[in-house]
Amino acid sequence: MKDLEGLFKHFLRDIYYAEKQILKTLPKMARKADSDELRTAFEEHLEETQTHVETLEKVFESMGMKARGVTCDAINGIIDEGKEIMSETDDADARDAGMIAAAQAVEHYEITRYGTLISYARTLGHTEAADLLQTTLDQEYAADQKLTKLAESTLNRQAA
Amino acid sequence: MKDLEGLFKHFLRDIYYAEKQILKTLPKMARKADSDELRTAFEEHLEETQTHVETLEKVFESMGMKARGVTCDAINGIIDEGKEIMSETDDADARDAGMIAAAQAVEHYEITRYGTLISYARTLGHTEAADLLQTTLDQEYAADQKLTKLAESTLNRQAA
Repeated sequence: MKDLEGLFKHFLRDIYYAEKQILKTLPKMARKADSDELRTAFEEHLEETQTHVETLEKVFESMGMKARGVTCDAINGIIDEGKEIMSETDDADARDAGMIAAAQAVEHYEITRYGTLISYARTLGHTEAADLLQTTLDQEYAADQKLTKLAESTLNRQAA
Repeated sequence: MKDLEGLFKHFLRDIYYAEKQILKTLPKMARKADSDELRTAFEEHLEETQTHVETLEKVFESMGMKARGVTCDAINGIIDEGKEIMSETDDADARDAGMIAAAQAVEHYEITRYGTLISYARTLGHTEAADLLQTTLDQEYAADQKLTKLAESTLNRQAA
């Protein structure tokens, strides 16, 4: 990486890899969810994640790049931690609460990466890419807020 | 982890480990920073991080727990990714921009974990812990915003 353009391309591949890992993980989380509302939230976010992957493919195309990922240690660590919480929490209510926390760590990683990418894209004049990525960022913020609401309205209290 | 109390204790140890890893990493980032403003930002955040560790020790004490960490795969992955960016970016301006992105990924992990901890503490009636953790969360948000400002006001453009 020798300049902002290089960093932009690197982080684009990083988040592409991350979204694909999330695609693989969300169905497992949905199956483990005890609360119907939480299961539905994970299933809906799975559909959104599929759209985010397609959006990234459009961004790659707009940049004249082949869509490919690069291993992202951060998302791997965050997902490993989530799996540990799922496997080490026997009580169904506590596991639901813990899975929300794990999913929110994933959301926050995506929020920071998309934020950086949009900022770089605007500085570099990649307007189409910036607009595409902004749509995804807005959905990640909404997903995070939905999880907070679900935790604070019922699931945390059930686990207490 | 069998209930919300168990999850609270787990995440408390998780963020304690994370803060200690950040304490070790920030001096390396400060030394690598080319911009004086970025170096100062990392040095100031190092001091804040020392306070966050002490605050967590107060929270452990308020819970009648011994302060100890538990390996946090997420922060290890996030820090590894930051180190990769530092070592693979030769240009000083690009490295500064990349280090900001790496530091913001760290901030966002802390924001999500402290957010979860505060929410659990309030549900469980651990008011003193919640108030202590809120002070730290406010500083993490401020640190993240400071980095965004630094990137968007000058450093990203210099790296472009």
